[in-house]
Amino acid sequence: MVEYLLQHIEFPSDLRKLKVNQLPQLAQELRDFIIDIVSVKEGHLGASLGVVELTIALHYVFNTPNDLLVWDVGHQAYGHKILTGRKSVFHTNRQWNGISGFPKRSESDYDTFGVGHSSTSISAALGMAIASQLKEEDKHHIAVIGDASIASGMAFEGLNHAGVTDANLLVILNDNAIGIDPSVGALKNYLTAVKEGKNPKVNNMIKSLNFDYSGPIDGHDLFALISELERLKKVKGPKFLHVITTKGKGLQKAEEDQVKYHAPGKFDKITGEIHLKEESHLPPKFQDVFGLTLVELAEQNEKIIGITPAMPTGSSLKFMMDTFPERAFDVGIAEQHAVTLSAGMATQGMVVFCNIYSTFLQRAYDQVIHDVALQNLPVIFCLDRAGLVGEDGATHHGVFDLAYLRCIPNMIIFSPRNEIELRNILYTAQLGLNHPISIRYPRGRGEIVDWQQPLQKIEIGKATLLKKGSKVAILSNGFIGRNVTLSFAEIDNAELFSHYDFPFIKPLDEEMLHQIFSNYESLITIEDGTIIGGFGSSIAEFKSKYNYKNDVQILGIPDQFIEQGTIEELQPYCEINVKSLVSILSTY
Amino acid sequence: MVEYLLQHIEFPSDLRKLKVNQLPQLAQELRDFIIDIVSVKEGHLGASLGVVELTIALHYVFNTPNDLLVWDVGHQAYGHKILTGRKSVFHTNRQWNGISGFPKRSESDYDTFGVGHSSTSISAALGMAIASQLKEEDKHHIAVIGDASIASGMAFEGLNHAGVTDANLLVILNDNAIGIDPSVGALKNYLTAVKEGKNPKVNNMIKSLNFDYSGPIDGHDLFALISELERLKKVKGPKFLHVITTKGKGLQKAEEDQVKYHAPGKFDKITGEIHLKEESHLPPKFQDVFGLTLVELAEQNEKIIGITPAMPTGSSLKFMMDTFPERAFDVGIAEQHAVTLSAGMATQGMVVFCNIYSTFLQRAYDQVIHDVALQNLPVIFCLDRAGLVGEDGATHHGVFDLAYLRCIPNMIIFSPRNEIELRNILYTAQLGLNHPISIRYPRGRGEIVDWQQPLQKIEIGKATLLKKGSKVAILSNGFIGRNVTLSFAEIDNAELFSHYDFPFIKPLDEEMLHQIFSNYESLITIEDGTIIGGFGSSIAEFKSKYNYKNDVQILGIPDQFIEQGTIEELQPYCEINVKSLVSILSTY
Repeated sequence: MVEYLLQHIEFPSDLRKLKVNQLPQLAQELRDFIIDIVSVKEGHLGASLGVVELTIALHYVFNTPNDLLVWDVGHQAYGHKILTGRKSVFHTNRQWNGISGFPKRSESDYDTFGVGHSSTSISAALGMAIASQLKEEDKHHIAVIGDASIASGMAFEGLNHAGVTDANLLVILNDNAIGIDPSVGALKNYLTAVKEGKNPKVNNMIKSLNFDYSGPIDGHDLFALISELERLKKVKGPKFLHVITTKGKGLQKAEEDQVKYHAPGKFDKITGEIHLKEESHLPPKFQDVFGLTLVELAEQNEKIIGITPAMPTGSSLKFMMDTFPERAFDVGIAEQHAVTLSAGMATQGMVVFCNIYSTFLQRAYDQVIHDVALQNLPVIFCLDRAGLVGEDGATHHGVFDLAYLRCIPNMIIFSPRNEIELRNILYTAQLGLNHPISIRYPRGRGEIVDWQQPLQKIEIGKATLLKKGSKVAILSNGFIGRNVTLSFAEIDNAELFSHYDFPFIKPLDEEMLHQIFSNYESLITIEDGTIIGGFGSSIAEFKSKYNYKNDVQILGIPDQFIEQGTIEELQPYCEINVKSLVSILSTY
Repeated sequence: MVEYLLQHIEFPSDLRKLKVNQLPQLAQELRDFIIDIVSVKEGHLGASLGVVELTIALHYVFNTPNDLLVWDVGHQAYGHKILTGRKSVFHTNRQWNGISGFPKRSESDYDTFGVGHSSTSISAALGMAIASQLKEEDKHHIAVIGDASIASGMAFEGLNHAGVTDANLLVILNDNAIGIDPSVGALKNYLTAVKEGKNPKVNNMIKSLNFDYSGPIDGHDLFALISELERLKKVKGPKFLHVITTKGKGLQKAEEDQVKYHAPGKFDKITGEIHLKEESHLPPKFQDVFGLTLVELAEQNEKIIGITPAMPTGSSLKFMMDTFPERAFDVGIAEQHAVTLSAGMATQGMVVFCNIYSTFLQRAYDQVIHDVALQNLPVIFCLDRAGLVGEDGATHHGVFDLAYLRCIPNMIIFSPRNEIELRNILYTAQLGLNHPISIRYPRGRGEIVDWQQPLQKIEIGKATLLKKGSKVAILSNGFIGRNVTLSFAEIDNAELFSHYDFPFIKPLDEEMLHQIFSNYESLITIEDGTIIGGFGSSIAEFKSKYNYKNDVQILGIPDQFIEQGTIEELQPYCEINVKSLVSILSTY
């Protein structure tokens, strides 16, 4: 009778009691455990399956949490979570009030650094290592980073600094040749050549940065991993271990289609078969409205270029990459470069759609200001995943963009109310605006199944009256306006409320605002973004500027980081859901 | 009799009529011309002197402006400006209504890309090169980047992408081993080894990124430069030329003290001797209040660490680097890394002062949100050069920080009114706040000569009544409050005005605000930052939240990019100077 091992393991101290030759069995059990739960609860799959052996080896060899382990991005940390006290709550992964899908300091001492965005691990672990040095503490500091993440500039900055320190830092490159989509870039090609034995270790690029390089080794060979980690434990200073893994390892379909199985949704845990949802009757995802409309436009306008930093699938730029490969670019996890590359192209008259998730545009904020807006270059930023994003949680909500973009001169800011507005603003932008524009739209689906309507030009800076009422004007920005419309059906006093769509936060429709402030007692604004500094704030500024006395109530994301959950859970928490609106409106 | 050459050159087309053997003489004249003017008009000196030959060679070999030349940062582009139509206006360099100290697209067709912040040139030139390729235009695209700038992550991102294209891009590394301060990092050490012949070209790191590497060559040898550039013109795809130069070349003192002669102020054009100003009676620079106070605090608190991305001199962190070298770090032009390194240290209980110019913190916006604020790590950000900065102009004004920081949960934001408030908040912050804090202070000098007063704790979130009046409350944030105080001496109705110092934008002193809104008819807010989204905006939001009806007038930086000039010229333009205040207050 087989004795199960995982059931006896709550913490790495239990793991360390096992014999080395028991670890392959544990790896199999851990893999099965992840598959069992993710197959029904959903989540990120492939990355964690790829590092099962590495996770076990790290906690076996190093004295975590005293030794400090930082996972880059954190998609891959499910095994880590299960082995560090969270096995019994792992089924709550990514749920409201459950555990986070990413390492998170407040959740466990083993989560030494909160992650979600990529390429932070080297800097963070180096900071810890320098601190340990100053405190004269004898600890190990390990950053595990993927080959897509290490190509980001920030990771290079960390390596470049670490190489001139004698900090006790081990950087482990988890090289599976893929991020969410396949990795790109010259460094990736270089790493591939190393793997294939084409570059001698002695002249290794990593060694050029003064790291003690070792590898590449097979990341699924527990004995090789443990032996090498034991050896590296004794090496002082910055060290670099190149580990080769297979994303999705152990589930055949996940190995074969690594992009789809990055986060596959529900699937059959034995066959790997993904449970398809009946989707044909559903409205489209906003990302597909972007991706498909861009192809339509690019067919007509040969100046159009599409750029994504490592999100061809997530942004649906892949449609254009398939149709016009010479005009659509995945530049890797390089948001800064993506923006300034777009600016460079724009100087030469190209019409550049630079698609970056709202939360990741934070990475290129300076480039938006300094390289695009200051030069008034008409780059078209498409900010997918704007507003609350759901299960990815606090690291990924795209709720700051309205505030951080609004202060930038020359920038037009537009939030489409629905798929057709998105489609039409894409059309309008490529006709030429003489300004940069940021078009922000949410994660997930819209509301209009039959969205592929003839393209129409949108007048810049215009708001629209959607519904006329007598007393209170509700001003909504973007898709959240849908909640306003839905709330009217559930109140008895709907006749009191006008509803205005203000898709443009900048330029504001000041003419319309003067009418509104003159004709209504009160205003309510609603947005899927921070109350501080966003759309409502712009209305408060307008009111101050023109000395209006009307009441203005601002609804949006409160001044706190919002955790993970479904949109249906998060919107009520932020009081921007239909039910919250119903109770607010019912008080009038 | 010597025939002068420079007088006949207005544009590169004139330059190209010269014989190669005339160019060394031209180089001498160009160098003299730069020294003549910068010695009396001030500006950046050393960088431009270092690239005189390279500048001539580039415009001689390439067909600018049809071939597209991008200077990184742009400190070094004075020779370029003089040779491209701006010789006769070069004396207006960095002045109000004069030419910009940096390349600027609106100024000349030869300035293909506006710069100021570092490390953008590769991305921009690659964008141009890809555009040319798509348009089937046969052009050359050249990025000239220094060894400090190329170590920034953004430059790596550009190289990493360029290496997998066949774009016609030439990256020229201007390697003088110094930025503003000496370059740091593993890449710098590697480049030094290459220069010293210790790394064989064939295994060159740059070649690992799939560039055609050549060099290193002597950047002051015009014949070598021209011959190599002519050769590279015929090479297709991404190319990399490593050029060795001496910053300050041709002015002995500038070669000997490269940090001081980066921007030396006025100096003797023959001897190079800097004209010292009598400064002992002046109030201190805010940067020195930071730098010297930090040393005082670090003597008492051994957990204190100082971090600067490449600005030890400009931030005055050099004082701590000299006194406590093991606890003060120059990490190079790597703002992203600097912030996350700080976060990593903070997780281990270190008290980290991360000093970054306001305009450069834009480079690390995501790291501030995602790595510091989200984890509520008590990193102490010191934002030097906040507000209008003067002659560096539009690329460098630190006017967006209040808006982009205010939307971040957990962040405390403080603007000291004077040197003593700065000193005391530094003291207070290191006692432990349990939150991150951003302390923003201006470029230049304060107002208190005798500033080294005993340290006092500041109560977080408290505003102060500075002067009592009867009708209007003026709320100022930071050092700009001085203008309010000064304006009172010049008006007849000063008794109408109260003046409140609101150093904390977050948390706001709501108790005080309720008193103010209850006791005054009108409010005026003033800040050295954007009107949109900043301090005034926070007061407008407060007013909306609590339904106050008082008038609120918001003074600050308008919604446009502000050009270069002295503070005495720029503040009137933005209507935040004493005289503007006098006219506003006189209307009451």
